Amino acid sequence: MSITSAIPPEIETELQRQVDRLNSPRTKIFHEMLTYHMGWTGEGAGAEARGKRIRPLMVLFTASSCGTDWKLALPAAAAVELVHNFSLVHDDIQDNSPKRRGRLTVWKKWDMPQAINVGDALFVISNQAMMDLAKNYSAEKVICAASVLHNTCLNLTRGQFLDMSYENRDNLTIEDYWPMIEGKTAALISACTQIGAILGNADDSTVEQFRIFGRDLGLAFQVQDDILGIWGDEMLTGKSAASDLVEGKNSLPVLYGLSKHDRFAKRWAESAISPSEVAEVAKMLADEGAYEFAQHESKRLTDQALDALKKANPSGEAGQALTDLAYKLLNRQS
Amino acid sequence: MSITSAIPPEIETELQRQVDRLNSPRTKIFHEMLTYHMGWTGEGAGAEARGKRIRPLMVLFTASSCGTDWKLALPAAAAVELVHNFSLVHDDIQDNSPKRRGRLTVWKKWDMPQAINVGDALFVISNQAMMDLAKNYSAEKVICAASVLHNTCLNLTRGQFLDMSYENRDNLTIEDYWPMIEGKTAALISACTQIGAILGNADDSTVEQFRIFGRDLGLAFQVQDDILGIWGDEMLTGKSAASDLVEGKNSLPVLYGLSKHDRFAKRWAESAISPSEVAEVAKMLADEGAYEFAQHESKRLTDQALDALKKANPSGEAGQALTDLAYKLLNRQS
Repeated sequence: MSITSAIPPEIETELQRQVDRLNSPRTKIFHEMLTYHMGWTGEGAGAEARGKRIRPLMVLFTASSCGTDWKLALPAAAAVELVHNFSLVHDDIQDNSPKRRGRLTVWKKWDMPQAINVGDALFVISNQAMMDLAKNYSAEKVICAASVLHNTCLNLTRGQFLDMSYENRDNLTIEDYWPMIEGKTAALISACTQIGAILGNADDSTVEQFRIFGRDLGLAFQVQDDILGIWGDEMLTGKSAASDLVEGKNSLPVLYGLSKHDRFAKRWAESAISPSEVAEVAKMLADEGAYEFAQHESKRLTDQALDALKKANPSGEAGQALTDLAYKLLNRQS
Repeated sequence: MSITSAIPPEIETELQRQVDRLNSPRTKIFHEMLTYHMGWTGEGAGAEARGKRIRPLMVLFTASSCGTDWKLALPAAAAVELVHNFSLVHDDIQDNSPKRRGRLTVWKKWDMPQAINVGDALFVISNQAMMDLAKNYSAEKVICAASVLHNTCLNLTRGQFLDMSYENRDNLTIEDYWPMIEGKTAALISACTQIGAILGNADDSTVEQFRIFGRDLGLAFQVQDDILGIWGDEMLTGKSAASDLVEGKNSLPVLYGLSKHDRFAKRWAESAISPSEVAEVAKMLADEGAYEFAQHESKRLTDQALDALKKANPSGEAGQALTDLAYKLLNRQS
């Protein structure tokens, strides 16, 4: 099967093989907690519950576009998806979120102590998956790839710390935004392309271009997401849900608005935004230039990402698939 | 400085060096959360707050007793202590414990979401510390040692799952006890001696004896701890605190008592034990043979541990220090 025709089933098989480490009689329920979260078992299991597996695809497309057999990189593809899911399980506890992708979150379905442990186990298994690369690669290369993932994970905890500590601050600026989303969103996507290139035996400068591509793609993606979180539904459907404003999320447009010290900033400082005010506040924010600013930043980062991708010069079908995936993530027509 | 004269300061220095990865202006408070937990900063900081650093000592003693320079193994010594502390931070949340070593726990001092992230960061840094071994060892050896630690961490999550799921069960047997403490206590101590031997360049059969030594030492230590948790204060001070009975802990003597289906089992099934009943219930349990049984199991495991240690044949000063440490942990006179 070609890497470029939809999600190759090998990703799911490899993920299941990794998580199967907990599939033994005594830890049957523990294993079930992980397979439930991964979208394989329980109520609402299926493709919808699994997400798009974008991160493993980035690893495999990148490795393949460097001219190697993408199947050799499967353990790393599983590892990045496991890291992503570890962070989701802990995130849901930290954010007190009852639902994810329309299903009960792990802490809500079981309890908080078990959910902490489920996140920990997903993280441990991601480490074990990385070590499995030793079957296909030299020990030096495994250590190089694993070190990239470990450094990324520390960035994830940095981003998570910043995000949580921002909740109690009222003097945030745009300069506070970038390190937070660099850790929370961009670090792991950057690790995917970087690790893919390392396992694709790319030279150092190509690995570096892939790293920059992943990082800027992640940043651009997050800015897009912030825009949609405030003006998305309005543009798409004509009516506004814009939960980001109601939730008080410190997104880029909001931080831009605060920097203007104008009507929006005053309203934001007063009290929480109620759903009925959302359309008005979203318009206020756009009128003060936040929409234009965020679109400009998104375009700047997208251009940087695509420039780095061009320099990385990915080849063949997989190179095209990687480019297509980038365009898709950036909500652009290719 | 000799490895055998008290705790070498190099352990603390290496731990601090590892945790310093978070020491930057934006994550200053995050770094502080970790240094507080490690016992270096904040109210009550100092030797008392740090614990005995037994696990890193086991790594270094073992490596040294195999005839290599223990300083080369320092990153691994730091890694096992970081894993231990990651599990403590998450444990404290899971158990709802307000204090550890006389100080507020991380979740109590900051909050639960931040504490989950602190545990995650300690875990990530333990992975990074293991990769630092590549400065002193071949990539193959680093992967071998890191894999042992990863497998151990999965066992930690297994033990944690069992411990938490036992809380709601009333049909536990002694057979349920061993896999739980194998994961919760023995796995990491076993990893210490196994990794120490690997980094000491021991041959496979010696590594295996060190692994068994660590495991049985860990099991024996936990059984001793269970005994002290019920009859300890009584024996030492004449008055009973025996919080394990009040807390309803599924310790070995309790599971033995339940297997007798006699007076203790009836009393245990009825309701929680109040502090005023502890002396009576502890005596009841001893009368039914639980004290003798637990002592017997402790001796059996201790003998097995010391037998494996003898076969591992640790040499020199460090070998003696390792033996002394084992005797000390097992509350025996050497």
